[in-house]
Amino acid sequence: MAHAVNVQRLSTTMLKTLREDPADAETASHKLLVRAGYVRRAAAGIWTWLPIGKKVLENVARIVREEMDAIGAQEVLLPALLPREPYEVSGRWDEYGDLLFRIKDRKGADYLLGPTHEEIFTLTVKDQCTSYKDLPVMLYQIQTKYRDEARPRSGVLRGREFLMKDSYSFDTTDEGLAESYRLHREAYQRIFQRLGLDYRIVSAVSGAMGGSASEEFLAPAAAGEDTFVDCPNCDYAANTEAVTVAVSPVEGAEHGPLEELDTPDTPTIETLADYLGVPASATLKNLLVKIDGEITAVGVPGDREVDLGKLGEHLAPAVVELVTAEDFEGRPELVRGYVGPQGLAGKSLRYIADPRIAPGTAWVTGANKPDTHARNVVCGRDFEVDDYLDVVVVQPGDPCPRCGTGIELDRAIEIGHIFQLGRKYADAFQLDVLGQNGKPARVTMGSYGVGVSRAVAALAEQTHDESGLCWPREVAPADVHIVAAGKALQTELALDIAEKLGTAGVRVMVDDRAGVSPGVKFTDAELIGVPTILVVGRGAKDGVVELKDRRTGEREELPIDEAISRLTATATA
Amino acid sequence: MAHAVNVQRLSTTMLKTLREDPADAETASHKLLVRAGYVRRAAAGIWTWLPIGKKVLENVARIVREEMDAIGAQEVLLPALLPREPYEVSGRWDEYGDLLFRIKDRKGADYLLGPTHEEIFTLTVKDQCTSYKDLPVMLYQIQTKYRDEARPRSGVLRGREFLMKDSYSFDTTDEGLAESYRLHREAYQRIFQRLGLDYRIVSAVSGAMGGSASEEFLAPAAAGEDTFVDCPNCDYAANTEAVTVAVSPVEGAEHGPLEELDTPDTPTIETLADYLGVPASATLKNLLVKIDGEITAVGVPGDREVDLGKLGEHLAPAVVELVTAEDFEGRPELVRGYVGPQGLAGKSLRYIADPRIAPGTAWVTGANKPDTHARNVVCGRDFEVDDYLDVVVVQPGDPCPRCGTGIELDRAIEIGHIFQLGRKYADAFQLDVLGQNGKPARVTMGSYGVGVSRAVAALAEQTHDESGLCWPREVAPADVHIVAAGKALQTELALDIAEKLGTAGVRVMVDDRAGVSPGVKFTDAELIGVPTILVVGRGAKDGVVELKDRRTGEREELPIDEAISRLTATATA
Repeated sequence: MAHAVNVQRLSTTMLKTLREDPADAETASHKLLVRAGYVRRAAAGIWTWLPIGKKVLENVARIVREEMDAIGAQEVLLPALLPREPYEVSGRWDEYGDLLFRIKDRKGADYLLGPTHEEIFTLTVKDQCTSYKDLPVMLYQIQTKYRDEARPRSGVLRGREFLMKDSYSFDTTDEGLAESYRLHREAYQRIFQRLGLDYRIVSAVSGAMGGSASEEFLAPAAAGEDTFVDCPNCDYAANTEAVTVAVSPVEGAEHGPLEELDTPDTPTIETLADYLGVPASATLKNLLVKIDGEITAVGVPGDREVDLGKLGEHLAPAVVELVTAEDFEGRPELVRGYVGPQGLAGKSLRYIADPRIAPGTAWVTGANKPDTHARNVVCGRDFEVDDYLDVVVVQPGDPCPRCGTGIELDRAIEIGHIFQLGRKYADAFQLDVLGQNGKPARVTMGSYGVGVSRAVAALAEQTHDESGLCWPREVAPADVHIVAAGKALQTELALDIAEKLGTAGVRVMVDDRAGVSPGVKFTDAELIGVPTILVVGRGAKDGVVELKDRRTGEREELPIDEAISRLTATATA
Repeated sequence: MAHAVNVQRLSTTMLKTLREDPADAETASHKLLVRAGYVRRAAAGIWTWLPIGKKVLENVARIVREEMDAIGAQEVLLPALLPREPYEVSGRWDEYGDLLFRIKDRKGADYLLGPTHEEIFTLTVKDQCTSYKDLPVMLYQIQTKYRDEARPRSGVLRGREFLMKDSYSFDTTDEGLAESYRLHREAYQRIFQRLGLDYRIVSAVSGAMGGSASEEFLAPAAAGEDTFVDCPNCDYAANTEAVTVAVSPVEGAEHGPLEELDTPDTPTIETLADYLGVPASATLKNLLVKIDGEITAVGVPGDREVDLGKLGEHLAPAVVELVTAEDFEGRPELVRGYVGPQGLAGKSLRYIADPRIAPGTAWVTGANKPDTHARNVVCGRDFEVDDYLDVVVVQPGDPCPRCGTGIELDRAIEIGHIFQLGRKYADAFQLDVLGQNGKPARVTMGSYGVGVSRAVAALAEQTHDESGLCWPREVAPADVHIVAAGKALQTELALDIAEKLGTAGVRVMVDDRAGVSPGVKFTDAELIGVPTILVVGRGAKDGVVELKDRRTGEREELPIDEAISRLTATATA
């Protein structure tokens, strides 16, 4: 029997659903994508996309492609196997460490499998563009990427081989870069909206990519590896490392005089707070670090932890290290476990403090003598702060920087990332074009990524229910899943309806498998997660079928012709 | 200005054409694809597909995908980074030698970059299919493949990273395999016809792939690396290794008695033929080889060369080696340079001969004594042949095995290959399904490949002319290339026509570049090779444009509306 190109018959589809979760699966997307026959593991972090999985992956890629084309980005395809030299020039051959798959060819030359392509795109534009008239240019590719993750897990959520859309913008001016960045930001909003993903845009620190401004697109999900700050009141959302608190001086507060206390055996905040019967938040903890070799104290409230990553980001390119026992030699004023800023800060020691240590606030802190603390140590009266930096680990209930409401911390999957790289790579590769003034102009770049295979997993995480997957229509492997629940009559009718729908442009999956019970077919349909299920069952002999909405579970019996015309209208809308 | 999705403006396209051939380019496709801005070299045998190149590559992939879908093959996507173990099981981890890119992950585990995927597809089907009811299955992917070629060259014709469509069929019966093979063969015929490629289907020896039957799809082109046999009279075409000649005994011929001749200093056929004044074709040359260690003589006419590859294929799995000086020790009857089959063949020596050494033919050959030959040495009278094997290198003028006409030898590019693998991989991986009789049935496989990126180069080779590329419409980066040859009026009109055509579904490239002369635009249009060129020039003010057929060079002036309606009709036809 010939059949319409939009019709997928399960009797001839390689599809094996599983009743049990794979033993190594922890996340819902991993379990369900495997159980429903979308993907299979080929090796650790390396996946095979089976027929219905390939359709979903392709649907995501198509949406991404359409939106990139719509902003005038040009599609190209660069190699995945890349020579070492450009990555030496950028420094990333070493920086990437074990994350990079390195390879030697038959002549012993070094290659790598591209984790991201800034270097090669920079060289491509250096080869292709010579004048400011050739810019701006935005280039993208949808390509297989490689990262040798230490612990590949969560199925296709974090693989070692994965599909990514990466794009790069090239401008001569900062305003041009800002515009390319804005175009990408808006395209990403459209992409994730079309994909049906719930997402937040958060400010991000750019990490190893370098550059000046960047935002992450996060899809909230319990299985996510990122934690982000979410305000339940306003629309503020941010990477935990990007949350900042302002310094709010306390004026007019009355504080008693500084008083030293005998506090034996209280070298930790916990023992101290217990001993004195005060909350940890009333104490001032002073962490000693070396910044470019110079000992510096970092003061934070006793109930907070210092985020060393955040501290490093603030102080880059200076190098931040923890102090060791040797660093105390020749510094008798530094008493381990009993350091306080009074008498030290601003004098023998640079003092960096959290904005919560605001002028006018009073603290219990070390007295710079063994077994001794001091209370009523007032900022601005008893010590000075050299630099305020927000370096504490953010906590639920911290005030939202926008509206002051207590924030929440949620887990999310990073599905997109946009960077204003600036001239980092252009400098490394001397990417200049002839400027409008006749002189060479250094190019400024942006780089932008969407995890295509990861978006499939993120969707599975966000949209599944206890019965299985629940795809948004534009991503689903089909618009309608027809279940032939009965004998020859039902199967014939199901195929007939499938033909009619397929011919009308509706993407149909039809379960015409012989020897499979209606119960198994229903279970599989729920598991596979096509948005509409059409059941051809007992009513078929009277010309009646059932339509079921996979997400809501709503059911309706209606005449076949009406079902067909309704589905045709929905799918082509 | 907003523009239709089918319109590509060259003013905003990253496209840099070159007037000079790249220094390292030898073939037309390499030169022209680089010069016209379709591809750029990223490393040896590793290529970047630039914007218009990506379009052509995608057009080829789309045609391949449509035809694979049409025969019911299911698209999947397997990883390119593959674990070593399955390739150990099949033996190809070693067999591939230096051709394989091998890689270690951070834990020291061995991986490879897939050159072809028989092993992993076999394992996929072993996982997914359990019963004869699950078969037949045909699976395909369009995926990046890797082979570390010793001498990557000819641009994208023979790269180390390349795009390939590979498919695999799984059947329980030989008849099923034959049917899957037939479906692929017909799909390939449609693919290459739609691509506009001139091609031949030739019988092939299957080489390292193993298996029983295979055919190659060859695109005749001077730049091709394959030589094939072409009959100018009938439709016979074959791989040179597959041409065979029948044994045609000569009956009733009168031959004088065998006569020994004193032939000093004539150890080669050339010196012997000169000395005796006979053509080389009248002499019988005897090559000594070892077959699994046993010395064997191979007799061929003196004007022919033995094809050791062909000999090896015939005798596989026996190992064929050339003899060395040591092999003559203890065999005084073997006189180097003067070996003849008389008195040896069938006695102390196995004798394999070319079919041309037919019973009843007489030869000049060695007399098994130093400086001595014999003439009137008659096959069947003076010596016997143990085995006839066609092992000579085929020559132009050899008779066509089908019609007897003198054949020609031509160069070609291998663009497709279909194999009946049989049970080689199923045996290696014990791929069984439950058979109809309730017992395990071993699966039989086919594997089928189309070089997608290579097909682009093959098309460039076959269709270019002295001015540049000449794409068939379905593959071209656009249907029409509009040249705005003039000032603002012409550019505005060109863009207006582009919009109208684009909206009507015609794929348009419009050269609206400012500051580029009409001459350069015409030269670029010829180089880029879109099938129809529409020139908006002087006649524009009178509403007249020129249409030019890129291939034939035919030009026609006509009113704008007529040009638009004609192009709309052609492109949507």
